[in-house]
Amino acid sequence: MVIRTASTQDDLRRLNRARLLRRLHEGGSARRSDLVAFSGLNRSTVGVLVSELADAGLVTEAAGLPGQVGRPSLRVAPVRNSAVVIAFDLKVERTIVALVGLGGGEIWRREQRHKRGDYTPEQAVRHVMSLIKQSLRRAPEGAAWVGVGIGVPGVVDHADGLVRLAPNLGWSDVPLGALLRAALESEYGFVPHLSVSNDADLGALAEHVRGQGAVKRNLIYLSGEVGIGGGIIIDGRPMLGAGGFGGEVGHMVVNPVGTECRCGARGCWETEIGLDALVRAAGITDPEAGVADVLAAASAGSRTARGAIDKAGEWLGVGLANLVNLFNPEVIVLGGHLRLLYPLVSSTVLRQVHHALPAAREQARVEVPALKADSTLLGAAEAAFEGLLADPMAVIADSVHATAS
Amino acid sequence: MVIRTASTQDDLRRLNRARLLRRLHEGGSARRSDLVAFSGLNRSTVGVLVSELADAGLVTEAAGLPGQVGRPSLRVAPVRNSAVVIAFDLKVERTIVALVGLGGGEIWRREQRHKRGDYTPEQAVRHVMSLIKQSLRRAPEGAAWVGVGIGVPGVVDHADGLVRLAPNLGWSDVPLGALLRAALESEYGFVPHLSVSNDADLGALAEHVRGQGAVKRNLIYLSGEVGIGGGIIIDGRPMLGAGGFGGEVGHMVVNPVGTECRCGARGCWETEIGLDALVRAAGITDPEAGVADVLAAASAGSRTARGAIDKAGEWLGVGLANLVNLFNPEVIVLGGHLRLLYPLVSSTVLRQVHHALPAAREQARVEVPALKADSTLLGAAEAAFEGLLADPMAVIADSVHATAS
Repeated sequence: MVIRTASTQDDLRRLNRARLLRRLHEGGSARRSDLVAFSGLNRSTVGVLVSELADAGLVTEAAGLPGQVGRPSLRVAPVRNSAVVIAFDLKVERTIVALVGLGGGEIWRREQRHKRGDYTPEQAVRHVMSLIKQSLRRAPEGAAWVGVGIGVPGVVDHADGLVRLAPNLGWSDVPLGALLRAALESEYGFVPHLSVSNDADLGALAEHVRGQGAVKRNLIYLSGEVGIGGGIIIDGRPMLGAGGFGGEVGHMVVNPVGTECRCGARGCWETEIGLDALVRAAGITDPEAGVADVLAAASAGSRTARGAIDKAGEWLGVGLANLVNLFNPEVIVLGGHLRLLYPLVSSTVLRQVHHALPAAREQARVEVPALKADSTLLGAAEAAFEGLLADPMAVIADSVHATAS
Repeated sequence: MVIRTASTQDDLRRLNRARLLRRLHEGGSARRSDLVAFSGLNRSTVGVLVSELADAGLVTEAAGLPGQVGRPSLRVAPVRNSAVVIAFDLKVERTIVALVGLGGGEIWRREQRHKRGDYTPEQAVRHVMSLIKQSLRRAPEGAAWVGVGIGVPGVVDHADGLVRLAPNLGWSDVPLGALLRAALESEYGFVPHLSVSNDADLGALAEHVRGQGAVKRNLIYLSGEVGIGGGIIIDGRPMLGAGGFGGEVGHMVVNPVGTECRCGARGCWETEIGLDALVRAAGITDPEAGVADVLAAASAGSRTARGAIDKAGEWLGVGLANLVNLFNPEVIVLGGHLRLLYPLVSSTVLRQVHHALPAAREQARVEVPALKADSTLLGAAEAAFEGLLADPMAVIADSVHATAS
């Protein structure tokens, strides 16, 4: 077991400075006394560290409201326009981009459609680079550009951004991280912190930091689109596994006599509750149809559609009970099409979840995302900020001004 | 996200001292220069910390073989007889106890049978207390008694040792930790570090520290006896979940049209591969029969027994593929009766595991325990040492000499 710790005074100072900035970025402005309590550091050390962050332009200090003893406590706030990241949610049929400032506030966003099943890695890179250029034009004057984060619906080696398999994009072994790194280097002569991650892992991250799991340490996020991905936070940290490939809940076999899955197994969870399966079971043949079409058909009286919804609810519950037994989460957040499906089938789902062992079941809630459809996008922003939050001074010193690009 | 770190110089010194002792306990003796490289501390700091540990009697220093540059490097070794723990593996039909010294060496062990299905918590406490007394009589002169660790085949709230559910012992909501704490206090006027944990969690811990996972950071251990428990190590740390109830792999539903499980669900993994299921499917009616009887029947030519073994192999593989997709482990260790079953069905199992997604599958190995039948017992010893390894000086100052008891 390795305890992550600081070995020298310099390390310690850097870690503590980073902890304070992370606290402000994730939790918003705070009194100096809150930071003292949060960090366990003494008042003067907090003062020095905050001054260093203020000198770098990342935070401001202002007199707040008087405290209980009368003396106004200094209030420390992150400066949104001091540092920005560009976040992408690369979906099967569209790409969403957002420019996000320190503290998590969205500054600008845009969405572009592309054709399902006909989106090559080269197109995606060109597309991302063009959207980066557009985003930078909207960046506030003097902002440091500190990161790019990208969510992909597939299995990603997040150490180097190699997309091992994104079946619904038709990609396998696409070195998206390396391609983007080269393109950024060539365009800007500078590569900010770059993160390419699984969409569900990013959904889990965002819901953990700013959504349903803000005070929870154990959370599962399910991305539901064509496939079903899972992002898992255990004890406050992403559960990655050996290569970052953990959480492939969509290929958990729940029904060994079920439909054959693209992965070669039979009765994977996503063959029972994935969007394509749902649309097909609802008797809808339009290949562009989505969950809204299924819900519309059901509310228009289609028994087939209603039956498909109910069956998906049963299987959703069976799989969730497994996840409760396996991971003992505090909250499971249903993203993607499951977010829209859940309100119609919640009683069926919860009846199945009730089969989980009592100790774990009693601690688990099933919820829809607090960040609505933006969990992955905002998670990509959080991942992009990781470089800055790990070592603020070094990243600010190295970064380029977004607007100068 | 919370970064576990040291806030003050004192904390830092305590953490670094603890890291060095843990390294020596888990990895065995080392040269001072190894400890410098391992810790990232400078030579003089390591010297001071090692001296403190030596003054407390926990380590010794002796001149080792000459290094490359000729000067002999001091070799630091943990002192087995300086600190001891008492470890228990509380099984459905027997209790195993071991007295274990610092560094993990077993000093003494004993095994006692009890009647299946007729072992009350009161009997268990009396039994454990009596075995503690016997163990302490075998403790080396002057050894500090620093812990008691107990593995239980059930769902345990390991914060306070409440056994929420141990169906095969017939226990529910048994406050085993509190009962033992009271008994220890009354008998010795002293309670050492006490850990009550799930048997599979302890098996995972021991295989991680000293067995199949010694250089792996992602490991799953399956305890197979009547039920199937799972212990999961992710990124070098036990995956506990919200209440420490995670890893209940035995109640993962793999066959929704299968047999009803005691838990109320249908087709749980343990209804397909648990020992009772295997014995029944093999056509053996003796309630005391074990896996050895099934293997014997098969090798004596029983087609029913061979069929039961093959079927269990198929379901074992289906569930393992799920675990590979969900957790992306480097190694899955098959304990309990699965340890004896696996060699007969490995090709069937691996054919099923091959259905897991390639990225995760390529990183996963399936193994039998390096510690053979002792993974849980030795894991209980590791858990019992946790108090000492977290803060050596404080625990040594507070502990009583085992032989003085």
